[in-house]
Amino acid sequence: MAEYIEKGIFNLSVRPRIQSYASLAGKKEGEGPLGKYFDKVIEDSRFGKDTWEKAESHFQCEALSMAIRKAELTKEDIGAVCAGDLVNQCISSTYGLREFEIPYIGIYGACSTMAEGIMLASILVESGAVNSCAAVTSSHFSTAERQFRFPLAYGNQRTPTSQWTCTASGAAIISHTGNVEITGGCIGKITDMDIRDMNNMGSAMAPAAAETIRRYLTATGTSPEDYDCIVTGDLGITGSKLLLEFLLKQGIDISKQHRDCGVMIFDPEKQDTHSGGSGCGCSASVLCGYFLPMLECGEIRNILFAATGALMSPVSVQQGESIPTISHLVHLRRAEQ
Amino acid sequence: MAEYIEKGIFNLSVRPRIQSYASLAGKKEGEGPLGKYFDKVIEDSRFGKDTWEKAESHFQCEALSMAIRKAELTKEDIGAVCAGDLVNQCISSTYGLREFEIPYIGIYGACSTMAEGIMLASILVESGAVNSCAAVTSSHFSTAERQFRFPLAYGNQRTPTSQWTCTASGAAIISHTGNVEITGGCIGKITDMDIRDMNNMGSAMAPAAAETIRRYLTATGTSPEDYDCIVTGDLGITGSKLLLEFLLKQGIDISKQHRDCGVMIFDPEKQDTHSGGSGCGCSASVLCGYFLPMLECGEIRNILFAATGALMSPVSVQQGESIPTISHLVHLRRAEQ
Repeated sequence: MAEYIEKGIFNLSVRPRIQSYASLAGKKEGEGPLGKYFDKVIEDSRFGKDTWEKAESHFQCEALSMAIRKAELTKEDIGAVCAGDLVNQCISSTYGLREFEIPYIGIYGACSTMAEGIMLASILVESGAVNSCAAVTSSHFSTAERQFRFPLAYGNQRTPTSQWTCTASGAAIISHTGNVEITGGCIGKITDMDIRDMNNMGSAMAPAAAETIRRYLTATGTSPEDYDCIVTGDLGITGSKLLLEFLLKQGIDISKQHRDCGVMIFDPEKQDTHSGGSGCGCSASVLCGYFLPMLECGEIRNILFAATGALMSPVSVQQGESIPTISHLVHLRRAEQ
Repeated sequence: MAEYIEKGIFNLSVRPRIQSYASLAGKKEGEGPLGKYFDKVIEDSRFGKDTWEKAESHFQCEALSMAIRKAELTKEDIGAVCAGDLVNQCISSTYGLREFEIPYIGIYGACSTMAEGIMLASILVESGAVNSCAAVTSSHFSTAERQFRFPLAYGNQRTPTSQWTCTASGAAIISHTGNVEITGGCIGKITDMDIRDMNNMGSAMAPAAAETIRRYLTATGTSPEDYDCIVTGDLGITGSKLLLEFLLKQGIDISKQHRDCGVMIFDPEKQDTHSGGSGCGCSASVLCGYFLPMLECGEIRNILFAATGALMSPVSVQQGESIPTISHLVHLRRAEQ
């Protein structure tokens, strides 16, 4: 049984492990500072398909296939999959994973999807209901841009606080074997600080990340020094600064441990990406491409992964609503051998 | 620990229970055959708000509030909430549940959402990670119609196989107390029989329901006679006929036990609803308004609840794709006192 620590915060006693993982990234992400870490860089933004939506689905299909192959498993070995994405009705996931015939649990956490998926997959394994469960997500610059902002051909100007939706995907398989264990987690609460600028998601999401990290540290009686890294999803440059400020005001200094996937994935000087990367695929690919291999080889031993998501839609913003946000957290640790 | 029966199918040993539940329905649903069973019928389709989207959010807010009140709890007592809906980026849930400050798990299962939510909430409680977890969903005729089909003012003609999206919401709180227990469940697989007609969802979803019901009966070694009712989400009249045919071809006759929420909620003769009701709120409100009270009072003792969802989007259909569908199942039983 999991240990209930306090509302939304738990330790896992079975200690589900990450058996395998894979990351795919697009051309621009491949040219960024983390390019060499991704399993595969896909130069063609259509990935051989006739639409960007079909391409994004194919990213998820490929990421899960690769994670399954790396574990020397077949799709029949996977007990369930938790997946979701940003495209309306999560079609990147439903079409991308349709062929696998794996019991499917659709989730929606916007850019927090990878943390939500790993958290749920771990709880499913912990409960005994499934023996293994994958977590998969993706994003694609072109599907997101035309759905949330403007048609690509419009060539709109971007504000300095805006982030660049990554074309990327990540998949992880959670079971009872592997070198990285999921120790516990924190289910995020919806946080809304009345920010209404769809081009400043980092600022909208920073309070959610701050609250989740604070809740987890306080409930577990740990401090930032107990972790090698405290990784946030994609707050970008703007949101990361705010996160550190919010936490410092509450006496928590994570400046030494903090890394943000949205900041890490692009070089803002050379790549014209303003505040950084975003999209479900950003933190998923950086976790599966960069942090999990580092945990696996023992270079780091203990991290908090707190992906963040903005839970608005173009319709809600047009109707004058502010942006509700969330951050789910999982605690990942190099397993004792 | 849950008992793993086979891939996607499990028994729960802790036997999480449904502590409380509530249902809300719109005017048309209130005028239907089940009108007297809903906790509250909301005559105003805007529910006092200035947009239909905000009204739908308010349906979820009210449904969860009512379920909490009926259990004589406060929002602080609820450990987590699993919620989702049909509106892009699930804004009915995120805005409707924002004020509760309950740890939030966003899910996407289209019209299967209530079964997915109860299944996940039960597993969360079974795992020990949370002590109680709500499952909430909604749909609204006007938000769905203008998002998936045509602007309301267009007044388009409806085909005979089309279904009417219900304006309704349901909420259930799963914990360790209550008179109805969740015995086990089946995580649905994505099923796609190459149907491309967005006005014939019942036919698209029937194979998913048939597959989930067949898998569960076979894996648990039970037959239709072991259940008082086998309830499907919203296959409507067209889909229900197909479901019975599909199962009969495999030697399974559920004609005596089968009830479909989409068939039950409207009177097609008097209400001009063609094949029946649909939308996440349809099966959620019929479960929480009609079946759970019947289980609670012992009038029925043992049901399978298999909600169905169509996982396409207008974009995927415009791009020539077929409609992937899913059906999640939970087994609900009157608890021994």
